[in-house]
Amino acid sequence: MFAMASQLETYIREHEDRFLEDLKGWLRIPSISTLPEHVGDVQQAAEYAADQLRRIGFEQVQVIPTKGHPLVYGEWLKAPGKPTLLIYGHYDVQPVDPLDLWESPPFEPTIRGGNLYARGAADDKGQTMLVFKALESLMSVNGTLPVNVRVLIEGEEEAGGESIEQYVRAYPERLQCDAAFICDTGMPSPELPALIYGLRGIVYTEIEARGAKRDLHSGMYGGVAPNPLHALALIIAGLKDAEGHIHIPGLYDHVRQPTAEEEAFWREDPLHTEEALLEEMGVPQLVGENEYPALERLGARPTLEVHGIVGGFTGEGAKTVIPARAKAKISLRLPPDVSSEEAFALFERRVHELAPPGVQITVRNIHGGESVLVPVDTAPMRAAAAALQEVYGREPVFLREGGSIPIAALFYTVLNVPVVMMGFGLPDDNLHAPNEKYSLSQFYKGIRTVASFLQRLGA
Amino acid sequence: MFAMASQLETYIREHEDRFLEDLKGWLRIPSISTLPEHVGDVQQAAEYAADQLRRIGFEQVQVIPTKGHPLVYGEWLKAPGKPTLLIYGHYDVQPVDPLDLWESPPFEPTIRGGNLYARGAADDKGQTMLVFKALESLMSVNGTLPVNVRVLIEGEEEAGGESIEQYVRAYPERLQCDAAFICDTGMPSPELPALIYGLRGIVYTEIEARGAKRDLHSGMYGGVAPNPLHALALIIAGLKDAEGHIHIPGLYDHVRQPTAEEEAFWREDPLHTEEALLEEMGVPQLVGENEYPALERLGARPTLEVHGIVGGFTGEGAKTVIPARAKAKISLRLPPDVSSEEAFALFERRVHELAPPGVQITVRNIHGGESVLVPVDTAPMRAAAAALQEVYGREPVFLREGGSIPIAALFYTVLNVPVVMMGFGLPDDNLHAPNEKYSLSQFYKGIRTVASFLQRLGA
Repeated sequence: MFAMASQLETYIREHEDRFLEDLKGWLRIPSISTLPEHVGDVQQAAEYAADQLRRIGFEQVQVIPTKGHPLVYGEWLKAPGKPTLLIYGHYDVQPVDPLDLWESPPFEPTIRGGNLYARGAADDKGQTMLVFKALESLMSVNGTLPVNVRVLIEGEEEAGGESIEQYVRAYPERLQCDAAFICDTGMPSPELPALIYGLRGIVYTEIEARGAKRDLHSGMYGGVAPNPLHALALIIAGLKDAEGHIHIPGLYDHVRQPTAEEEAFWREDPLHTEEALLEEMGVPQLVGENEYPALERLGARPTLEVHGIVGGFTGEGAKTVIPARAKAKISLRLPPDVSSEEAFALFERRVHELAPPGVQITVRNIHGGESVLVPVDTAPMRAAAAALQEVYGREPVFLREGGSIPIAALFYTVLNVPVVMMGFGLPDDNLHAPNEKYSLSQFYKGIRTVASFLQRLGA
Repeated sequence: MFAMASQLETYIREHEDRFLEDLKGWLRIPSISTLPEHVGDVQQAAEYAADQLRRIGFEQVQVIPTKGHPLVYGEWLKAPGKPTLLIYGHYDVQPVDPLDLWESPPFEPTIRGGNLYARGAADDKGQTMLVFKALESLMSVNGTLPVNVRVLIEGEEEAGGESIEQYVRAYPERLQCDAAFICDTGMPSPELPALIYGLRGIVYTEIEARGAKRDLHSGMYGGVAPNPLHALALIIAGLKDAEGHIHIPGLYDHVRQPTAEEEAFWREDPLHTEEALLEEMGVPQLVGENEYPALERLGARPTLEVHGIVGGFTGEGAKTVIPARAKAKISLRLPPDVSSEEAFALFERRVHELAPPGVQITVRNIHGGESVLVPVDTAPMRAAAAALQEVYGREPVFLREGGSIPIAALFYTVLNVPVVMMGFGLPDDNLHAPNEKYSLSQFYKGIRTVASFLQRLGA
């Protein structure tokens, strides 16, 4: 084992530059899944992933068409008697606006201060590529993998993930496995590895408010005309108050009280201190439900956030228009036991209640994802923890994350297997924001950790 | 007088086509004063106006540079012993977004159903051009004008009007006159001419809300991070409630109670019925302070309207961002006795009171204009009323308009002369909106009315 580990280490070290180049090539493809003009780029990024799998020696490699963006599948099932691991990642990325805040162009990967800057560097091309490179390294050194592996990569993670959900529900037998591994999460700091055991669900909505049949001049109609922007403001203010309390009857009924163990985790986590959060965000104070600890608000409480509002005149200067329509994008993060569908129904009812007279309101369910809490004490979790311990020199912490990875719930409930969420992102990676980056040191440690994880799983 | 009127009528009829072509040429210039990329177009539209004045025979015609867009001045002062009339118009226009709602391109004037469609067709190139054509017709037929005339045309009416205000305050002697005439208002219907005797003031503001130093991922920071869009919603909902009451302490203190005469006007006006307003706007009900009649809300009550909000992700689909900043544009319409500056101070104080914790708020005064109520019983008003009676076959109604024409207050207070506000716009002209139009019949009747007004003023 020592000799083999040493060979593996040599291989990884000698190919670090090419590993990085392979990632950069992927990052140059602007695979923004929510923008129709990038549909060709998304397809190209899928082909790129398929090509990576073929080069490693995967079989049945396919770019699977869907109603939306394609899935990429590949398998290597030549380790009889060994467990089968299903590996998930995504090759689509978030939009890049506001573009003017990027210090280097989002699709020209650029290294600064030990970090690789590009849209998707962390979320999730960097993390998916490190898994590919762990597989490549093991295969190159040993001519085989320590476990059977299926890889399923999607292109709609940032766009609702509908196609992969349909695929998993339709063909669970094609994904038969003993465990699933998702590399799309982070750790609190480069010194503190983490395994994620809980994720919130999400429901992402759009409210459209319509007033008059055309834009009106406020000097001629102000005082009697419905104003869709004012209506949205009234609705949003009614949904959540200045103290962060969400006023959607029924929503909090479902919230599960945290266990003593979870509360201990939150108290012990040395990284998510109030000071650290204030520094990261650059704000003078935290907001929200201050009767709960910040970590509980971040990871376990329901939240409601407005992501975008647009309507009326938004250029320089002045235009005295009462717009005919306006839109707001709002999501709820959901704790365990509140389904996305239930939450949407409560939300929609409340929005209509809050709508002022004279304005027509449409509420759309853009996408949803279920929350998940997975058991911590499973063989794959122990293998992952041991791998992190080996590479990082300390035991990982077990954390809930506030984000939503609906595929985790899907694998857990439909495939009914243990799910390992181990990722190498850092809190300052600027996910979904300008200047997204990935730490090069985390990229290379990730390769070593995933290789060790697979070896331990097959041992 | 009959012979002369007949000659005038003949001249107007014979030149109607060219009058329209001259207007179309002006409308083809996209002189949007609030958009920096159109600064050259605005200049070109000023030159076009100057050229029109020169062709009529005006002297001292100048395109006067300012800190912003130029003023156009011209004079004809060869009627000794006759009064001097100062004529005002503006050659700048509103932006055209949303462009996709225009049925024909905004800067390609198009005739449909007896109307000329183009941005600026009504506001105010069409109305200014009809005044030019009345002047041209009188001069061509008589070789002289019935009164002395100064013309002052601005290019910042839709952008705050700062330059003309500075000019009028700095050089009142250059504008010496016995009356001022503003052709920038409307009438309730093609059958019901109107003279405007009151206009509300305005203060146009922009609120910027800033949260974290960068856009944040709602899954990672939701629940503790300040959200500028939520802050704007709380502020706007606090400023005006669902019943249209404005919650700005001190604002209503200044509102002057309407006189019995004004209330009689509102009751008598057959065109601004609730049914007509509902039909024009295409809405099922009027909103706002329903304890006041609709006409009082439209013309005399203070109003607060949100004109635009922008922030966060506003594309198709979903992006789970908490934006770092967001902006709202909001104006107040002010009744007599509330200055724009006073109103801004009350507004700004209230916005800061309403701001939730953790968000930094900046309130900007984009521009302001004072309200005005001019006396109805003056010689110029009587001349205008008689001209309308002559062309439309019935006496005009005297109305307040809800819009704001700050120059009216400026002429009234600085030059201290009677101000006639007579215009030929119609309620369905789509001012400041897509598919702005001007009725061709109103354009030609306007030429005849203004010619008659000038003759009566000089009689």
